[in-house]
Amino acid sequence: MAKQQLEALLISQAENVRYLCGFTGSSGWLLVSENNAMLATDFRYIERAKLEAPGFEIVEAKRELKEWLPRLVAELGWHRLGFEAKSVSYDSYVKLDESFKKGEFKADLVPTRDMVEQLRCIKETKELDCISRAIELTLAAFEHAKKVIRPGISEREAAWEIEKFLREKGSEGVPFDIIVAAGSNSALPHARPTEKIIAEDEPVLLDMGARVEGYCSDFTRTLLPEKTDKTLMEIYATVFKAQAIAINGITAGMSASEADNLARTVIREAGYGDAFGHSLGHGVGLATHELPTLSPASSDVLVDNMVFTIEPGIYLPGYGGIRIEDMVILEKGKIKVLTQGAK
Amino acid sequence: MAKQQLEALLISQAENVRYLCGFTGSSGWLLVSENNAMLATDFRYIERAKLEAPGFEIVEAKRELKEWLPRLVAELGWHRLGFEAKSVSYDSYVKLDESFKKGEFKADLVPTRDMVEQLRCIKETKELDCISRAIELTLAAFEHAKKVIRPGISEREAAWEIEKFLREKGSEGVPFDIIVAAGSNSALPHARPTEKIIAEDEPVLLDMGARVEGYCSDFTRTLLPEKTDKTLMEIYATVFKAQAIAINGITAGMSASEADNLARTVIREAGYGDAFGHSLGHGVGLATHELPTLSPASSDVLVDNMVFTIEPGIYLPGYGGIRIEDMVILEKGKIKVLTQGAK
Repeated sequence: MAKQQLEALLISQAENVRYLCGFTGSSGWLLVSENNAMLATDFRYIERAKLEAPGFEIVEAKRELKEWLPRLVAELGWHRLGFEAKSVSYDSYVKLDESFKKGEFKADLVPTRDMVEQLRCIKETKELDCISRAIELTLAAFEHAKKVIRPGISEREAAWEIEKFLREKGSEGVPFDIIVAAGSNSALPHARPTEKIIAEDEPVLLDMGARVEGYCSDFTRTLLPEKTDKTLMEIYATVFKAQAIAINGITAGMSASEADNLARTVIREAGYGDAFGHSLGHGVGLATHELPTLSPASSDVLVDNMVFTIEPGIYLPGYGGIRIEDMVILEKGKIKVLTQGAK
Repeated sequence: MAKQQLEALLISQAENVRYLCGFTGSSGWLLVSENNAMLATDFRYIERAKLEAPGFEIVEAKRELKEWLPRLVAELGWHRLGFEAKSVSYDSYVKLDESFKKGEFKADLVPTRDMVEQLRCIKETKELDCISRAIELTLAAFEHAKKVIRPGISEREAAWEIEKFLREKGSEGVPFDIIVAAGSNSALPHARPTEKIIAEDEPVLLDMGARVEGYCSDFTRTLLPEKTDKTLMEIYATVFKAQAIAINGITAGMSASEADNLARTVIREAGYGDAFGHSLGHGVGLATHELPTLSPASSDVLVDNMVFTIEPGIYLPGYGGIRIEDMVILEKGKIKVLTQGAK
């Protein structure tokens, strides 16, 4: 904030708000300055805000932002207010900016990017504890899933059995819809479970996670049938190797694009470069997808205490796909795998 | 589009995309002009896009919008492209606008608001059929809920039993987290189920919905204990009366703020004006909350074939709250209640 000469910052992105003050409502604005820590929310959430963010001054936000924010900012004597450019809509920005320019309470609105996200990507002990508990649930659900996923059950039934297991063991909902994709459906990187009945001779891609105190896990395995053809074994082995090389090769200080390239090179050299269309991984925390981004275009740098996924994949449309995803942490410069599930 | 002299419109809001072309992925851009209907999505969703939007030209979007959109717009000969100001972030707008101004492919980006949302709020026969099926599931779940919600069960267990019922009967997930709020928790308008055990003498607020082919339902009842005190009976009767007056009084052609005022007046005159802090209702369709907005500040006008909720409430912090919510449709100028559940 000092670097950008901001007297205060308006935080509206939901996970950022939760990260900084604990509030879990869907509509809240945090105002932070050197001397202030205020949480504004509407009528529906005032009581929850008081319970969840006890150290914060709670302000009732009546109607739209532009109706109450400029006066408050003027009262607090601020002239340069940062806002989160990636989570405020163009429409909200225009309205708010007008009210700061045309009204009686003048201030400059300054776009900021990823200020809280940069803090969130380095995990603290308490956060790692929540993530560990989410992973523990996930690995227990994986053991259950291996019993559930059998020829004769539909993708949708299997996904629902796994979700019930996760939630009855204590997951707060599921952080994303569970994927159970059999046969050629596994070639859709973001498949949704269908009524398709799993057959004897098909691979099954399973992607799932749990949530504990807001923190997520994210884990993928592709189960192979007893009889596999040559192509399936070859792409499984390629993805497995790509992941192993990334796990062994990524070190603290490496750029995230270089990390992505470790795995991508293996897949490209095996002749499947075009079939790995997504990024190698992403940070996991209060959001399933957060910083860092491990992709060819990323400008992130990987450092200790970042938690992220390593999830190469090969997808052959009409045939099938393989993805293997683990969550890892950078610890003392090296990768430590957090999701110790059989491959 | 003609009125705003737009040659084409870029649609990125997820429900708007689904409404117009059927695509259900989380990342898609629709480009519509007099002669074009194109759906751009990334690698992960190309296969799904082809399946779900067969009448549309599918374009693979590599990397960010600014990397591929300006060239495509230039190739199609467009010079004025509308975008959805409420769902595009300030950051995305700035990047996109720069690429259209500074690059070799020049065009004007024009903000639009609620263009597709205005279409969505008038329901067609096929949509009403999905909504009816979502309501049928909800009313069946309400019968189940009345057996489940008993002294001795926790709010969280009760909510989970209701969710399991809904999903096992065919709801596509649940459109929002089910609320089961007992005693003083019912005073939190957007409560979340806790470990609190429901006691003998408490009101229980239940807010839930189902989803069928993307379409949602939204329904609230407050269950009263056998023995109620005078205040609870009085606020129940007031909310009940406020809702009945709105149901009987709302007609096609009425402004949504006038509709809100019908119920609000009853609550205010009973002395509980400050305890009804939210709006009277909202449209329901592919989103749980969509147009029209029935609130004091709304500029919407209610017309035939709009589907919305009528849900007055009174919330007394530390004591308890009452909300009664029905989904209704305007038909031949009058309100018809769609959710025929006992009060």
